[in-house]
Amino acid sequence: MFAIFPSPRLRRSPFFEATIAEGVKSFSPYNHMLMPTGYGDPMAEYWRLINGVAMWDVAVERQVEIVGPDAARLVQMLVPRRLDRLRPGMGWYVAVCNHHGTIINDPILLKLADDRYWLSIADSDVELVAQAVAGERGLDVRVFEPDVSPLAIQGPKAEDVVARLLGDETRAIKHFQFKEMSIEGIPLQVARSGWSKQGGFELYLMDGTRGTDLWNLVKEAGAPDDIGPGNPNPMERVESGLLSWGGDTDEDTNPFEVRMERYVDLDAPDDVISIQALRRLHAEGIKRHQLGVKLKTQGHLQVTENWSTVIRNNEAVGHMTARTWSPRLECNIGLTLVSRDASAGDHVRVNLPDGTSVDGELCALPFI
Amino acid sequence: MFAIFPSPRLRRSPFFEATIAEGVKSFSPYNHMLMPTGYGDPMAEYWRLINGVAMWDVAVERQVEIVGPDAARLVQMLVPRRLDRLRPGMGWYVAVCNHHGTIINDPILLKLADDRYWLSIADSDVELVAQAVAGERGLDVRVFEPDVSPLAIQGPKAEDVVARLLGDETRAIKHFQFKEMSIEGIPLQVARSGWSKQGGFELYLMDGTRGTDLWNLVKEAGAPDDIGPGNPNPMERVESGLLSWGGDTDEDTNPFEVRMERYVDLDAPDDVISIQALRRLHAEGIKRHQLGVKLKTQGHLQVTENWSTVIRNNEAVGHMTARTWSPRLECNIGLTLVSRDASAGDHVRVNLPDGTSVDGELCALPFI
Repeated sequence: MFAIFPSPRLRRSPFFEATIAEGVKSFSPYNHMLMPTGYGDPMAEYWRLINGVAMWDVAVERQVEIVGPDAARLVQMLVPRRLDRLRPGMGWYVAVCNHHGTIINDPILLKLADDRYWLSIADSDVELVAQAVAGERGLDVRVFEPDVSPLAIQGPKAEDVVARLLGDETRAIKHFQFKEMSIEGIPLQVARSGWSKQGGFELYLMDGTRGTDLWNLVKEAGAPDDIGPGNPNPMERVESGLLSWGGDTDEDTNPFEVRMERYVDLDAPDDVISIQALRRLHAEGIKRHQLGVKLKTQGHLQVTENWSTVIRNNEAVGHMTARTWSPRLECNIGLTLVSRDASAGDHVRVNLPDGTSVDGELCALPFI
Repeated sequence: MFAIFPSPRLRRSPFFEATIAEGVKSFSPYNHMLMPTGYGDPMAEYWRLINGVAMWDVAVERQVEIVGPDAARLVQMLVPRRLDRLRPGMGWYVAVCNHHGTIINDPILLKLADDRYWLSIADSDVELVAQAVAGERGLDVRVFEPDVSPLAIQGPKAEDVVARLLGDETRAIKHFQFKEMSIEGIPLQVARSGWSKQGGFELYLMDGTRGTDLWNLVKEAGAPDDIGPGNPNPMERVESGLLSWGGDTDEDTNPFEVRMERYVDLDAPDDVISIQALRRLHAEGIKRHQLGVKLKTQGHLQVTENWSTVIRNNEAVGHMTARTWSPRLECNIGLTLVSRDASAGDHVRVNLPDGTSVDGELCALPFI
């Protein structure tokens, strides 16, 4: 347990006071902010997500707003996916890739209008990259971080909670669509999305002074379903095979290596900054791919900050990038980034950071 | 006090084990890592820096290495300072500015060879920006983060400690110069630099597996001078008027506003990405400038994560961006970013985040 030193470099979430009141116990830095990562009872927080409904402060998913006459052009340059079918009110999961085809972020791209977009980003300074490309191309756009902070409501009962809060019309919002709404004067974009496979919504709060108000309204609407605080869940996300950019990826990871090929259109326009590299990487064939691993060990393995070497036939074939106890599979599982010739069914040994090692079997993803 | 959740997104400093052994009590996130920010006795840590010698884990000052035939060209594009006089073995304090002239980082630029540079960066993803500009211009360079982690030795006795550790030849290293050396097989760049005005060195460790070894060697060499652990000191840096990028700056801050005009050459080459904007901003004249403020309040004000509004004649004129008790001035002091027509000597009132306010007087920087 450590203190986190106050600094204006480290910005407060609008939901900070509310999460303190809920008894938040741990944080993780993300996008120059702190993300709550636990409230003291990991198993209860997990099962609440799986069977009920949880509310998460994910204000760290900052928005990069791109607006202006050349906004659509700039967004397309950053994203190797054909965006001609993306309509206002829709959000798509995309890879932002650099000129080498390396993933530098995996945001949700929300189209607010033909000339206005948000990239709801993972943990890297996409804003600076977007500004650099806009500047180099002389584009007529503004790139900035608006006052927008998502609050996630996740789990099978999330729809009922959101309907109780904002009306039954929210039930008609389709997966990855969003709609502008407000409650008690709090402006929101209401999206059916979230970093879990349990279903749910993200409320994009558009007034940072109203964080506690929104938190309390959601909590009240969720009370009949026993809503409780939680966070992007490290057990559920490994079970579901959700990518953690910067955790499961390194400085050379391209989309084809981490099951993002369906988010790449090789026929995307030629001025996409990564498209030449991605066409080349695709033609050459990938060297690594992402698989799961089931570990043959007793007890609950803890999450860790280290990548672990994966050994097959006495040869290092890659890394385990995340590991967790799976409450539903009742075994320890992990995500790996391994050589293309390592396959589901292969027996491997994983060297853990504490010097021990553990047997495992590679498998396809997702686990569940 | 909170736990910091382990994640491979949050990389360990090579000195992490050593700082834990020293009893580190608090951290601040920086460049996707954790920087130690205190060992439990802030006043002792301050006076050790002022009168003796302290050792700091500043591995969070990551290096962006730019190497290759076009390295010098790319570095010059990023930095609005004429680099024709920068020779190998020299480091310069520079502003990295975007196409709008906004400071997006304030690194030390180290020239290792005519085709090889390090930017020793503040807390933003400069690597991604450098890669984007290199890609857009089609430059023949490689941009990456090498395995390099600085350990700072700061204070008036730092030179003696470094001479004891690495030999008297280190006394000849001039301010902001550096030299490749090694000790017990540990490869280092030894620079006379550091984020304090008390003098000292930074040892750029070039083998991340040897962090504890280097820490212990420095500790042993420093024992006769009572060396102890510390960190970039929030009291000393405000007294000395050192800039904290992202703390004292916002999304619109240009170098002229924060006393960095002497690090801008308006006759820098035209392909510097920020030079057109900086020439325009300079011609228009700045709207804000950085001043100190002496606060007329009793007791020790704590550092805080918030900017505070500065009021003059019932009108908001800007913000106090940092505040601290000054042990040497024996009063509370702060840094401000205020309207150009606010001047040293002006009486102001500062609204603190807790709802109280305090009288103060603006003054020139540095304080000491």
